[in-house]
Amino acid sequence: MTTLKLGIAGLGNVGVGLIERLVEQEKLRLGGVVEIAGISARNRSRKRPVPIDPYPWFDDPVALAKDDNVDVFVELIGGSDGPAKLAVEAALSLGKPVVTANKALIAEYGEQLAKLAEENSAPLLFEAAVAGGIPIVRAVRESLAGAEIKSVRGILNGTCNYLLTEMLNTGAPYADVLSDAQKLGYAEADPFLDVSGTDAAHKIAILATIAFGVPLDFSKISLSGVDTIQLKDLQFAKKLDHKIKLIAEGVNTENGVICRVEPVLLPMKSPLAQIDGPLNAVMVETVHAGPMTFTGPGAGAGPTASAVLGDISALIAGDNRKVLGHDVGSLNTTLCAPEDVSKSESKYLIRVDLADRAGALASLTDALAVSDVSVDELLQDSAGDQEYAPIAIKTHKCTYAAVHDAKKRIDSLPAVVDPARTIRIEAG
Amino acid sequence: MTTLKLGIAGLGNVGVGLIERLVEQEKLRLGGVVEIAGISARNRSRKRPVPIDPYPWFDDPVALAKDDNVDVFVELIGGSDGPAKLAVEAALSLGKPVVTANKALIAEYGEQLAKLAEENSAPLLFEAAVAGGIPIVRAVRESLAGAEIKSVRGILNGTCNYLLTEMLNTGAPYADVLSDAQKLGYAEADPFLDVSGTDAAHKIAILATIAFGVPLDFSKISLSGVDTIQLKDLQFAKKLDHKIKLIAEGVNTENGVICRVEPVLLPMKSPLAQIDGPLNAVMVETVHAGPMTFTGPGAGAGPTASAVLGDISALIAGDNRKVLGHDVGSLNTTLCAPEDVSKSESKYLIRVDLADRAGALASLTDALAVSDVSVDELLQDSAGDQEYAPIAIKTHKCTYAAVHDAKKRIDSLPAVVDPARTIRIEAG
Repeated sequence: MTTLKLGIAGLGNVGVGLIERLVEQEKLRLGGVVEIAGISARNRSRKRPVPIDPYPWFDDPVALAKDDNVDVFVELIGGSDGPAKLAVEAALSLGKPVVTANKALIAEYGEQLAKLAEENSAPLLFEAAVAGGIPIVRAVRESLAGAEIKSVRGILNGTCNYLLTEMLNTGAPYADVLSDAQKLGYAEADPFLDVSGTDAAHKIAILATIAFGVPLDFSKISLSGVDTIQLKDLQFAKKLDHKIKLIAEGVNTENGVICRVEPVLLPMKSPLAQIDGPLNAVMVETVHAGPMTFTGPGAGAGPTASAVLGDISALIAGDNRKVLGHDVGSLNTTLCAPEDVSKSESKYLIRVDLADRAGALASLTDALAVSDVSVDELLQDSAGDQEYAPIAIKTHKCTYAAVHDAKKRIDSLPAVVDPARTIRIEAG
Repeated sequence: MTTLKLGIAGLGNVGVGLIERLVEQEKLRLGGVVEIAGISARNRSRKRPVPIDPYPWFDDPVALAKDDNVDVFVELIGGSDGPAKLAVEAALSLGKPVVTANKALIAEYGEQLAKLAEENSAPLLFEAAVAGGIPIVRAVRESLAGAEIKSVRGILNGTCNYLLTEMLNTGAPYADVLSDAQKLGYAEADPFLDVSGTDAAHKIAILATIAFGVPLDFSKISLSGVDTIQLKDLQFAKKLDHKIKLIAEGVNTENGVICRVEPVLLPMKSPLAQIDGPLNAVMVETVHAGPMTFTGPGAGAGPTASAVLGDISALIAGDNRKVLGHDVGSLNTTLCAPEDVSKSESKYLIRVDLADRAGALASLTDALAVSDVSVDELLQDSAGDQEYAPIAIKTHKCTYAAVHDAKKRIDSLPAVVDPARTIRIEAG
């Protein structure tokens, strides 16, 4: 039976969860025996729920990666630069397999690391980097290798999904819900990476490369987060029988692959609209094999450790796949630049508060007409005792340029104080 | 680049779909070149949507399996006995990898074939045998090898799910909906394997062995199909905020693994209740990695061919996993016999038409009390101008023995003509 000796760098929740699972690994189906040959973390004396004394300690993760007793280097440090990258490079350079949960590292340096891995015949596995416990990397890279993929679209950040769900359920504004989520541990003290869409963009960049063979170029992902979403956006979406979700997507089009992250209105009945709370879900549409949806916990120690262990099991079985599902030198499918993405046509929700006076609505509809944006549905709520009446417009299909032009015109209207809000509407 | 030469036996929809995909395989990501070294089917001259003249023809699938030009034998003949089994055995005996979509073959002879495969170091892959295009076999066998699985529960027969969905949506009785489904191609001319639950039982038997290491013993799966479900069952379930689904499940309990297929009431909000139409869905619950749900098309040429191609891609990458996820000799987890399964406790729906006269309801509730079945909710519809009033009871948790005893007592009541109906209720 194969025995693999791990060097584990990073002992946060995931690292500790991994050790806990390995202690009782007879309950798993790893296909071999896994030992811990060494561990490393920033703080040796921090209190942890599992004893770490049994394992050789390394202050320096690079030294751990290079240690002769370590067969496989497991990188759970995080961060795209610094020690995580140095240690991964050290392991790969010696031909040692690496397992990592580090999405930022793979999204930003994936090609460079895959090249190093291939040059040294060292597997580099990162199932845990995308959608936590959901085995979507292996599904797209391996199980669906025989399917022509049209799009990969998903809810890839549980924090954002939790925030949007809570806002709609409780009727509380973004700032309040975020602050509660931070107290409950659903959001980080510094939530920027999550709420800005950056984390989801890291993940979709990785999936798009595997699915379509586009270069792993994080700079070309156009992104916008949930931090701009207002409670009223969610409520008006609901009135239009839609739900707003932060959708990360890679879509294969005639002109190349569009890759973007932004809040989107989805029809209430669509599979992704039904994913509430801190879950992740990924929908893969294919030409001949239909759409498939994978749903589960997108983060947390247990799910992430499970994904890491799935990779370790693959190493025991002798994983032999291309790191990014393609030769690094052949990643030549066109990845559309953000400015090209904006040329594609969509329906939009336009939300604006309009002065409650005669002629105001006419000035709004005129602005839309001049911009060649055609109205499918228009909802006006009563202004009540406010001076401004909230209005939501669902447009017919138009380009981003047209809706952006309409927004500029609307924002300059005397009847409008706060800038209009535009959110894309997806068919499903 | 690796080249694999296939022998394809069986040229129904899936076989033809496979050839169509291979003709344009540059659109896929197989990781190598796949050639067709020979084909076989019952009828050579049948009209097919793809030319088969370019490929060497074999009347006998066993001869194809043995042919020196064939590297990998692809079995798409179907049927658990006869030529499918003979040809698979012939290939494995020669150490040739086999890919099959044949659930009956694997469910009934899986252990014997896995043993033959292991003895000859020949991979035997069957992703297409379970849930069509959804890569659930590989997910459970490989990606979730590092997760301790509590249960695998799913909608594994699209025909049954379509029938249940249509009955509820159209208000038409079972026989009418089945007949329409046959015309539309959603049900076979002889629907027995589907509607009896046999097909779903084949699939859950396979998944339970991989997930839990139980013997692959199809005879121990207790099963009941959708052919006994009445429209009123579905309608009363809906009134109780539940949906009836044919659920195939393997559940790890203290006393062993319970494996069964039967129509079950699920809360309307549960993920599986939301799967409508001819789809499949599998929910895997784990101890530490949360529940995961995989949804997609469970049948059809495209999805099944995609699963077959995923297996072929795994062979190109050098698949090296245990056929059933465990050594065949070590499948020693207890698989509960159907009589043990009935000792487990559940809530039940009891449905009965009761004579519309004084004392009738009292006789019913007495019968329940004597059997120690406690009522959680009771709905009585108006008898209108009928003599009998339809009644639905949701029980508290009780054993199958208790509910069965109650049913016997109810059926013997003078106020009851047709036998009472009992359907298990699942928590989620």
